[in-house]
Amino acid sequence: MNRELGVNSSRLLARLDELAQFGAMQGGGITRLALSDADRDARDRFVSWLEALGLAVYVDAIGNILGFRPGGEDLAPVLFGSHLDTVRDAGRFDGAYGVLAALEVLETLIEVGLETRRPLAVVAFTNEEGVRFPTDMLGSNVYSGALSLEEAYAVPGFDGLTVGDELRRIGYAGEFPPGALKPYAYVELHIEQGPILDRSSIPIGVVETVTGISWKELTICGAANHAGTTPMDGRRDAGLAAARIITGLRQLTLDLGGDQRATCGMLSLEPGAVNVIPGRAVLTVDLRNGDESTLEEAERRLAGLVAEVAQQEGVTITARKLARVRAVAFNPMVPAAVEAAAADLHLASLRMGSGAGHDAQVMAGLCPAGMVFIPSRDGISHSPHEYSSPEALAAGANVLLRTVMKLAE
Amino acid sequence: MNRELGVNSSRLLARLDELAQFGAMQGGGITRLALSDADRDARDRFVSWLEALGLAVYVDAIGNILGFRPGGEDLAPVLFGSHLDTVRDAGRFDGAYGVLAALEVLETLIEVGLETRRPLAVVAFTNEEGVRFPTDMLGSNVYSGALSLEEAYAVPGFDGLTVGDELRRIGYAGEFPPGALKPYAYVELHIEQGPILDRSSIPIGVVETVTGISWKELTICGAANHAGTTPMDGRRDAGLAAARIITGLRQLTLDLGGDQRATCGMLSLEPGAVNVIPGRAVLTVDLRNGDESTLEEAERRLAGLVAEVAQQEGVTITARKLARVRAVAFNPMVPAAVEAAAADLHLASLRMGSGAGHDAQVMAGLCPAGMVFIPSRDGISHSPHEYSSPEALAAGANVLLRTVMKLAE
Repeated sequence: MNRELGVNSSRLLARLDELAQFGAMQGGGITRLALSDADRDARDRFVSWLEALGLAVYVDAIGNILGFRPGGEDLAPVLFGSHLDTVRDAGRFDGAYGVLAALEVLETLIEVGLETRRPLAVVAFTNEEGVRFPTDMLGSNVYSGALSLEEAYAVPGFDGLTVGDELRRIGYAGEFPPGALKPYAYVELHIEQGPILDRSSIPIGVVETVTGISWKELTICGAANHAGTTPMDGRRDAGLAAARIITGLRQLTLDLGGDQRATCGMLSLEPGAVNVIPGRAVLTVDLRNGDESTLEEAERRLAGLVAEVAQQEGVTITARKLARVRAVAFNPMVPAAVEAAAADLHLASLRMGSGAGHDAQVMAGLCPAGMVFIPSRDGISHSPHEYSSPEALAAGANVLLRTVMKLAE
Repeated sequence: MNRELGVNSSRLLARLDELAQFGAMQGGGITRLALSDADRDARDRFVSWLEALGLAVYVDAIGNILGFRPGGEDLAPVLFGSHLDTVRDAGRFDGAYGVLAALEVLETLIEVGLETRRPLAVVAFTNEEGVRFPTDMLGSNVYSGALSLEEAYAVPGFDGLTVGDELRRIGYAGEFPPGALKPYAYVELHIEQGPILDRSSIPIGVVETVTGISWKELTICGAANHAGTTPMDGRRDAGLAAARIITGLRQLTLDLGGDQRATCGMLSLEPGAVNVIPGRAVLTVDLRNGDESTLEEAERRLAGLVAEVAQQEGVTITARKLARVRAVAFNPMVPAAVEAAAADLHLASLRMGSGAGHDAQVMAGLCPAGMVFIPSRDGISHSPHEYSSPEALAAGANVLLRTVMKLAE
């Protein structure tokens, strides 16, 4: 393998700049919701780049865009890419970096005339973010067969329009059958969206797991009463019960250790007056772990905590499941290739889990999959302040290049 | 003293029924906000009852209504009463009971021709609740000299109309100078609005103190971040800091013991999403104690708790004073009279503090003052479910009768 081979990072950065214009907002943020006009314009540009390379371009029925380059043998291809849609007021790297780096990898190989044994395909998946249409990772779910096309088409957006309607409107309800191109492996390059690599000054993350997610809404019913006339020992304070659950979550993460995370992001108290003991509290709990069995243990401990608080505070607490995604441990093949690629480039790497969800975890149900992470400054993402340095972006793309070459041999 | 002398409880109950029609709402609640048409109608009816007894009726410049009966000697009078205004969707006893029981006491004495040595005066104070006009205990504050008439007139209501405007509109901006009738003592009969007497089945509360109140708003600034990608040890979670303060308040009350109360009634988290660590939290703290020095100690401990949580959680916390009312310890004279009156009637009594604010605490700045409490079923008040039994209402009125007779000797 040619140690000197590398991507053209100026071209990659220029394309990131250009793509950031689609959905650009005043103030520097980007809003390019799935299947919006801005998403269509970004897709059109991406397709034009693929076509300029002479690649066969396929748009499948759920709008996933594939650029295909044959290999030396007629084998299952190595697939790599990410997504072009964004959250509201987003940064420029989440998703777009993975897609454009994949394009850059392919262009680099074409420029030097390097043919791989296996075919290669870059992909931009539809609606990874799930902001406009609430089923996130929609395109990869249909690709992998986890979701039917009919179900996907019927998903309504917050504006009442469905995925099917909007795919047809923007001209991206293609004819290619989703998943017809069965990959040998899937690799996704992405910014970390967390602070671990940035803090430790390690340029490459070798993602071994994607976090499992358990979201619950807890509704606590106590008794609203006068803050002045109600003795402390007669209270059934829903707010205090909520506070005990929140502090209990902290203890739960300390007890479980590792990468266990727990967050209460939303809490409302009723009736909500300075001098009235809360009679009702509603809070959310977000539990995450890259190890499914530990996540299940965290769920059991949360249930125990809830029962204990309910009993001790004289309140009733009901739990409702808001979301549950199983943790994914990647087949070791792709992480091993990523790690070896980084080593080839003398780049330090760290085996780690992803705390956010990605198309790769869905594709892992279809084929060996894995991810490459690069540092996000201060761990900031889903924000105009999202930033990764040009050097970090180039290093990640070069690791992707070498990973793809290894997998395609 | 005649052991057989007692109020006409049927007449008292009938008047409570009649007064409850002013401001009656569908569903059983009463909304008789200060200086509203409903308040005017209730005042008119009260004045008609005073006049029917041949009493001299004075309406002072802040709208306090006084019914005066001369005593055997030209001394400072014993003043007793409460208020006629209500909160929204109120019950029928808070305030109205104290005024109508005072009327009943005077009528009983007139019927049996019993003349007291000191003059007697019943009073209905203006705007005790402070719902429409945010200065609560307004009438007694002007009466006692704590608030000037000009300041009181200028207080704007939520509807933009001022106290002065509305007093004139309903015809209750009287000519009598507030406080011109300097009392020898003030007694107020009231429902407890808490569960202590009801739980312990004691019919009479001898109120020795009125709680001091310290309201603070705490604003916690941390860092909003991704719930999945942010390690636990790098978080500056404003919601967790708020939860620690709330659980710390519970510990604070346990440590201080006695009647120390602490409540967090309001809490908001921002940005408020399931998967975002709260970057900002705003909560209120309501501290109460009948002992001023202990309340000050509670405030110091809250400040210590806040500083400790801020330091440990890496957040900044700013405190803003929302309200501060000093605790009042009544001159022992009136409580002693109340206790003796209950004993005369073979009614069990309990010395206690009031956890809510009352006109009596304001009048304590002008003369010896005190209160009689009767049980509130389940401690419920400021609600259509407010309830005290006919027997409890009669017992309280009879204790008021004897207390007034003792003080007027």
